[in-house]
Amino acid sequence: MSEVLVRSFGTAVRRLREARGWSQEQLAEHADLNRSYVGEIERGRAIASLVTIDKLSQAFGVRSATLLGHCDALSDANALKGTRLAAIAC
Amino acid sequence: MSEVLVRSFGTAVRRLREARGWSQEQLAEHADLNRSYVGEIERGRAIASLVTIDKLSQAFGVRSATLLGHCDALSDANALKGTRLAAIAC
Repeated sequence: MSEVLVRSFGTAVRRLREARGWSQEQLAEHADLNRSYVGEIERGRAIASLVTIDKLSQAFGVRSATLLGHCDALSDANALKGTRLAAIAC
Repeated sequence: MSEVLVRSFGTAVRRLREARGWSQEQLAEHADLNRSYVGEIERGRAIASLVTIDKLSQAFGVRSATLLGHCDALSDANALKGTRLAAIAC
């Protein structure tokens, strides 16, 4: 389940970034993070810390709870998709 | 600001744990985390990762956004207290 959350977090970050028309470089600059680290997070390959979540939230101008809310919603959707696929596979 | 958030996160975790009448050992067991790591998080000395936030949220039976919401509210209160103290110091 944690793996789903990490991937969902990456997707949430990418969507918020793209909604602002920012490149990964621009987001990294706004959030004071390394560009390649931002890329790893978006691909679900790096696990963000609370400080990174805070930096990204501030860059987007949202609360960290709001960012995690996007992430929770995506996790639910992915978990549901997984259930459906499992159901089809039965 | 991130330091305030890390301390607020620790306070939020401690309050939720105490509201359930759990010891740190019990929370660690429910969340599948090390007891001393839970203690460090509560004291604001360890920075939780997204996976740890997820494990703690699941142990408490809340969404990670809800846990971060508690944390954001405490951060606001602490930031406000800091502002007031700064104002008194002037």
